[in-house]
Amino acid sequence: MATRINSVPIKTLIEVDPFIPADEQQGIHNRWHPDIPPVATVKPGEVFKVQCVDWTGAQIGNNDTSDDIRDVDLSKVHNLSGPVAVEGTEPGDCLVVDILDVAPFDKMPWGYTGIFELNNGGGLFAQEFQSRAAKAIWDFHGVYATSRHIPGVRFAGVSHPGLIGTAPSQDLLDTWNKREKELIDAHPGAVPPVAFPPQAEGAYVGQTDIADDVRKKIYAEGARTIPGREHGGNCDIKNLSKGSRCYFPVFIKGANLSVGDLHFSQGDGEMSFCGAIEMAGIITFSCSIIKGGVEKLGLKQPIFLPSPVDPLYSAKIIFEGISVDYHGDGRQYNMDATVAYKQAALNAIAYLQKLGYTRQQAYLLLSAAPVESHVGAIVDSPNACVTLALPLGIFEDDILPKATDPVLPFKNRDWCMAMPIDFTSKKKHGTYLYIVLMPHMYASHLGQPDRNLTDET
Amino acid sequence: MATRINSVPIKTLIEVDPFIPADEQQGIHNRWHPDIPPVATVKPGEVFKVQCVDWTGAQIGNNDTSDDIRDVDLSKVHNLSGPVAVEGTEPGDCLVVDILDVAPFDKMPWGYTGIFELNNGGGLFAQEFQSRAAKAIWDFHGVYATSRHIPGVRFAGVSHPGLIGTAPSQDLLDTWNKREKELIDAHPGAVPPVAFPPQAEGAYVGQTDIADDVRKKIYAEGARTIPGREHGGNCDIKNLSKGSRCYFPVFIKGANLSVGDLHFSQGDGEMSFCGAIEMAGIITFSCSIIKGGVEKLGLKQPIFLPSPVDPLYSAKIIFEGISVDYHGDGRQYNMDATVAYKQAALNAIAYLQKLGYTRQQAYLLLSAAPVESHVGAIVDSPNACVTLALPLGIFEDDILPKATDPVLPFKNRDWCMAMPIDFTSKKKHGTYLYIVLMPHMYASHLGQPDRNLTDET
Amino acid sequence: MATRINSVPIKTLIEVDPFIPADEQQGIHNRWHPDIPPVATVKPGEVFKVQCVDWTGAQIGNNDTSDDIRDVDLSKVHNLSGPVAVEGTEPGDCLVVDILDVAPFDKMPWGYTGIFELNNGGGLFAQEFQSRAAKAIWDFHGVYATSRHIPGVRFAGVSHPGLIGTAPSQDLLDTWNKREKELIDAHPGAVPPVAFPPQAEGAYVGQTDIADDVRKKIYAEGARTIPGREHGGNCDIKNLSKGSRCYFPVFIKGANLSVGDLHFSQGDGEMSFCGAIEMAGIITFSCSIIKGGVEKLGLKQPIFLPSPVDPLYSAKIIFEGISVDYHGDGRQYNMDATVAYKQAALNAIAYLQKLGYTRQQAYLLLSAAPVESHVGAIVDSPNACVTLALPLGIFEDDILPKATDPVLPFKNRDWCMAMPIDFTSKKKHGTYLYIVLMPHMYASHLGQPDRNLTDET
Amino acid sequence: MATRINSVPIKTLIEVDPFIPADEQQGIHNRWHPDIPPVATVKPGEVFKVQCVDWTGAQIGNNDTSDDIRDVDLSKVHNLSGPVAVEGTEPGDCLVVDILDVAPFDKMPWGYTGIFELNNGGGLFAQEFQSRAAKAIWDFHGVYATSRHIPGVRFAGVSHPGLIGTAPSQDLLDTWNKREKELIDAHPGAVPPVAFPPQAEGAYVGQTDIADDVRKKIYAEGARTIPGREHGGNCDIKNLSKGSRCYFPVFIKGANLSVGDLHFSQGDGEMSFCGAIEMAGIITFSCSIIKGGVEKLGLKQPIFLPSPVDPLYSAKIIFEGISVDYHGDGRQYNMDATVAYKQAALNAIAYLQKLGYTRQQAYLLLSAAPVESHVGAIVDSPNACVTLALPLGIFEDDILPKATDPVLPFKNRDWCMAMPIDFTSKKKHGTYLYIVLMPHMYASHLGQPDRNLTDET
Repeated sequence: MATRINSVPIKTLIEVDPFIPADEQQGIHNRWHPDIPPVATVKPGEVFKVQCVDWTGAQIGNNDTSDDIRDVDLSKVHNLSGPVAVEGTEPGDCLVVDILDVAPFDKMPWGYTGIFELNNGGGLFAQEFQSRAAKAIWDFHGVYATSRHIPGVRFAGVSHPGLIGTAPSQDLLDTWNKREKELIDAHPGAVPPVAFPPQAEGAYVGQTDIADDVRKKIYAEGARTIPGREHGGNCDIKNLSKGSRCYFPVFIKGANLSVGDLHFSQGDGEMSFCGAIEMAGIITFSCSIIKGGVEKLGLKQPIFLPSPVDPLYSAKIIFEGISVDYHGDGRQYNMDATVAYKQAALNAIAYLQKLGYTRQQAYLLLSAAPVESHVGAIVDSPNACVTLALPLGIFEDDILPKATDPVLPFKNRDWCMAMPIDFTSKKKHGTYLYIVLMPHMYASHLGQPDRNLTDET
Repeated sequence: MATRINSVPIKTLIEVDPFIPADEQQGIHNRWHPDIPPVATVKPGEVFKVQCVDWTGAQIGNNDTSDDIRDVDLSKVHNLSGPVAVEGTEPGDCLVVDILDVAPFDKMPWGYTGIFELNNGGGLFAQEFQSRAAKAIWDFHGVYATSRHIPGVRFAGVSHPGLIGTAPSQDLLDTWNKREKELIDAHPGAVPPVAFPPQAEGAYVGQTDIADDVRKKIYAEGARTIPGREHGGNCDIKNLSKGSRCYFPVFIKGANLSVGDLHFSQGDGEMSFCGAIEMAGIITFSCSIIKGGVEKLGLKQPIFLPSPVDPLYSAKIIFEGISVDYHGDGRQYNMDATVAYKQAALNAIAYLQKLGYTRQQAYLLLSAAPVESHVGAIVDSPNACVTLALPLGIFEDDILPKATDPVLPFKNRDWCMAMPIDFTSKKKHGTYLYIVLMPHMYASHLGQPDRNLTDET
Repeated sequence: MATRINSVPIKTLIEVDPFIPADEQQGIHNRWHPDIPPVATVKPGEVFKVQCVDWTGAQIGNNDTSDDIRDVDLSKVHNLSGPVAVEGTEPGDCLVVDILDVAPFDKMPWGYTGIFELNNGGGLFAQEFQSRAAKAIWDFHGVYATSRHIPGVRFAGVSHPGLIGTAPSQDLLDTWNKREKELIDAHPGAVPPVAFPPQAEGAYVGQTDIADDVRKKIYAEGARTIPGREHGGNCDIKNLSKGSRCYFPVFIKGANLSVGDLHFSQGDGEMSFCGAIEMAGIITFSCSIIKGGVEKLGLKQPIFLPSPVDPLYSAKIIFEGISVDYHGDGRQYNMDATVAYKQAALNAIAYLQKLGYTRQQAYLLLSAAPVESHVGAIVDSPNACVTLALPLGIFEDDILPKATDPVLPFKNRDWCMAMPIDFTSKKKHGTYLYIVLMPHMYASHLGQPDRNLTDET
Repeated sequence: MATRINSVPIKTLIEVDPFIPADEQQGIHNRWHPDIPPVATVKPGEVFKVQCVDWTGAQIGNNDTSDDIRDVDLSKVHNLSGPVAVEGTEPGDCLVVDILDVAPFDKMPWGYTGIFELNNGGGLFAQEFQSRAAKAIWDFHGVYATSRHIPGVRFAGVSHPGLIGTAPSQDLLDTWNKREKELIDAHPGAVPPVAFPPQAEGAYVGQTDIADDVRKKIYAEGARTIPGREHGGNCDIKNLSKGSRCYFPVFIKGANLSVGDLHFSQGDGEMSFCGAIEMAGIITFSCSIIKGGVEKLGLKQPIFLPSPVDPLYSAKIIFEGISVDYHGDGRQYNMDATVAYKQAALNAIAYLQKLGYTRQQAYLLLSAAPVESHVGAIVDSPNACVTLALPLGIFEDDILPKATDPVLPFKNRDWCMAMPIDFTSKKKHGTYLYIVLMPHMYASHLGQPDRNLTDET
């Protein structure tokens, strides 16, 4: 029939299976190195798809325990699909990348958000909360996500790749390794670590035709994928969402674009570390080149144009924070936006707890929902001021403060009873507990460490 | 006639003259202290206006030199109108403040943005740029501002009070003074200073009926107004704009609300310190009370609801920064959002310079325009990632990168020739130069110190 | 002091007093005619202000009766300030007008919305409702309006001139008068009239130096101001708001811009005729010229760029209507968007009545609030489809449908008891009643005519 | 592995093949009738998918002729998937339908927009343009669409079902047929027809187990799907997009929801009739019930909540229209919003022609892009005022009017030469021509009929 003619699906350059461990698959690598050869080459203007496993490479399951989070092997993260070379691209060019779509696999319509252990991954409040593993599973229903572990919310995802970048040159790689080593050396024994040096253990490049010495070099020198850097990388910018256009500096011939760590949704800051709704999925790209763009645009790091289709939740409640640790020891910091962000986040967590959420639920929700965090002011010595805006439209009920009693409408509501699954009954000896607990069972005051409730039985 | 009946203007509680030095006027104070008596008292629900001088108290003129910025007396800032007490308010309550409007005086339809001297005020890049005084004057045309010193842009203001807060209790004041002193003591001789201790010199309370010993106590202990703190204060949050609703913790009977430092517009971060478009003007308020709100809402610092009438510029170009000082010595910082913000800002400045702006113009424009800065990610050790979004709609021309030559459309344009006033001709011996200079006269590369061009003649 | 220098207020070209009848003032006219001389002339680029009385010229009072609405003299509307000529403008040019600001007088911080009598003004549902006069007074609190007659709502105004246009040429004027006469002739005795022919009675031009024969010609031929036409005029487009830029065709030398009918706020459609929040106030302009712009831009009617500062209420409830009068006699119309709009509006009114509002309150609220009406589809024979979107953020309470009982949260709420003023007690013999009545006193079902309650006593 | 467990794809209730004629498939019907049995039944709360062919049922191809549009068999449209019954739903209930996603088939990443023949389908300007068939093919690249037939634009789709509704009761169906017959009878011989009576020819219900007499009754009485009606139906409201929630009145037990006519994108009005980007695809739903909702909510037609993820293009150029046919014979209409919409559309078309587009390109672009049309005012006798807003962000270049020459930047640009395919060379004798022609070959002035260029050779 008429419609069949010229119906050409967009080609998929890299295919993966989200149910198979990443290190058993082709087209996946987990370190940054200029010598990783491209697995595919595209022409400027081509539209193509790349499939990605979730960032851990299938280590986390859709269940109600957090043992997998506790035991995750972080030497293997992040799993990146690629590299893809772009014809005609040379060092000094700017690679223009259109992120045309980001979607989960039909066969895996869920994702997860986790709090990592203080001793294995950490997170923004790893020390403050003495973090123990916790997890929320999110089910995808078209544009929306909901979680059986965090009731009362539903929101549209601002889907994006948490991690995308061009390959570094050898020089740039050496710079990274040098400067990060200096930081590590300056903080011996830090828990969680302040940075991650190259580590051959856990490293892989899912290509069979790499000479052994090259592979050894890649594993020995390859930069870890945790931080974002000058080439992009793990910037975890939620606004780099489907529909956005990015301008990357190019450091080696072909540019060698890699991508992974897809997020169904994320809040500004992604505070719990694995705070986005992590998913496996499919990303659609198109690339073009601005010759000599690094110099012409003054590129030291990517720039980008945001998407016109990010969720619009205009009504918000906004929390402030300054660079005084008033949730902790009261110490005054010097224009420290990180401390200010943390106070704003703790204020938001406190508010959500007044609504009846546990601290872990609040922590995960703020990490995963389309929360916006602005640097308000960063010049009023000694206090930077950072805000955190929580969209009202993601809640089933009105959460605004009221002059009536109760001030907060959920305060006396038995939130957890409303959950679709009473999974406290699934509790088993020797297993870490899921995050949602009956309020009367759980002391969720800020300042208390997370507890492993199974230890108490 | 019909229309005259019941036409009752909103009452003005505090009247000031923006043309008269603040310390010669009534109803203005410039320190935070619980013993400053209210100059007026309102009932919950009342709508009222408060007039404010500009934050310096009429020290800065509408002219083309920056001598006044260079010589500004910062012992006198910020000039606050108030306090206004709210009947029935007690410590522990939450004071709900509706910021109903913020507008300039009809008789003073202009404002200014300044770069302060390294040795007198500083700013985010005071050290990096070895800052010398510079200034841009902004003319207000209804909802818009333009500047003869920064051609090619026009934008709608997101007008707000840079500084608003309730009075601290004696305990809270003592806490502030103690913790800030500790910080100062830890950074002896810092330039610019890391914080500002109480300073009797320059202090005033524009009320005649204060006992001498009370006045002396206020001057001796009163907290400086530079930083935002738990009560609000100088948070410089642009989203606290006209139309927003704020929830302040109350520390003393009556709450004692003070306000000042009105901004016609500001970008997130207000990076040049006096980076907002500073103005004198009139603010309209209405207050109500949530009894016991501090505990009920978990208030450690104000929360607020943003206005539905902030300017909407949906198309943007976004710059990234990480916590590596790649614009400077290349040092790796540990999850430092302040450093990341600075790199994003320097990337934006570099881009604007490619368009033909001088570094100072870029610095001031990013401070004053409705720029948005988000904390992208703050968990990917060791790099925090912060973005800075520049709205495209504020430029007269399309500033997007192009694959054609020139990549940036303004690159070869003789920007400064298009200025309405050729004020380079006003240059005088012994006077600081205005910021706008012919490109061929001015080396504006990042990394060079600001130069006092008059020194070179 | 520094700040006084160069502080030059924007000049006001036309000053009026909102408390004095328009026909007693200078600079006001109420008919369109090419021979009305300009009262002021500006250069391109100048910023200037024009003051305006309300559209009726001070006929409507801030009180709780609707007698003034009932008895309004419509031969005198609309009162326009101007004309203002722009130097160098000729027929065929395009006059670019920046609407920089629109604001009420400080001394008159209120406006009104009215339902006009079937026999004096009418409105969209004049026939259906057999309209009797009703009125709501709105108080302005900065960016917000509230009404003691329509409790439970507060919204930010999207302030704009309901009426703005260039003067017609004699040819264009003749065309208007001819085509409208033909319509009138085709609908003899229509109530309300289908159009309004020139009418010397009630006409005025507030200028003393007009020759008698010219004045007589103007009064005899001058087009009435009720409808919008090719020159702009009374288009009542809420998006022509402060901050917008308009491109007007020019028909006579100097363009001769006139303006009036300022609105604090309006919903799409302005359905009750005097449905916007009518106000007296001050508008700020700046003009420029595109030579030959009519041909170059293909201008048959103005085009415009909307403002970036219109209120953003992203959450809405949307009603649909089609071109079947299912609220009336069930008749099928042929692709009639007007009928479809009316059904959507009646659906919205019905919903608001379920919340506890009276039909008149609903009618006025939908006219005055920032309601959006879209033409959904206009090609699906025989039914045009029009939508009407009511912003949720303007209500104090959550008005969304719920699966619980009551479905609508206000349904059982005694709305009117919550009003600040019990003005039913002001009811007097012989006076029209205000619109807000106790629910038990008032049968507000659609399909019933508006009743003059005083007739029943 | 961990991820495979509990990875349950959302179930698909109705599967179709977009490449096979609709009348050869199961689960598709093309008339509204209460006796069409449900093909599936869901429980409240279930998430499920329904696949849909394009509205014509695979009649239109991805090619560069418009013969298929010319010859389309409209007796077969629209092809609807369903009905789906919802357990526990009864007449008088409200069926709450969440439209969770709308997406094209991966294997068919394209859609089309067409101008139909005056004598076969028509469109808003069928008479004015004496319409001849034309077509634009749109390629989908993730969230964006582009067309080789309309160069210079790219936009994000606001994907939605053009047609969705519950089944009518027999009473309601009879009402529809009666009132539409009266309209048809009042316009004998109208071209295009004013409405479409039931027509057994072309009717089908893709279910095998329907008794012959039932099938015959359905075909004889079943309402055509062209217009929207009280149950929803073909409302073609672009805001009923993925992410929106709809409240439908229920007329028969089970509600019997049907859906089809999926649109990748559409402008308000969908003016060229087949003006949306028509596609085959997959829609994801979830339903719930409000018992007795029709009465409780006052539902005469569906109401809905818009999606938070519609594309946000805040910068626009807006055209106005009034109810005077100034593009045609100059006739004055009486408050006719349809005429006003048409004038606004013609103004927009004229502007786009100044940019270099042909009239057909402009007509199709305004139909397909996320254009917004507002009813400005509908009470200013005799002129309704309707606006049409064209988003600037969909154009590759800046299309704003300039005071310089050329006023419109594209005016002298050889648009068509920039097209990726020079398909004028494909012209063949006896075949309708594609819409994009060289400007010098084509007189595209408004007022001229569309020409069948092949007739001229």
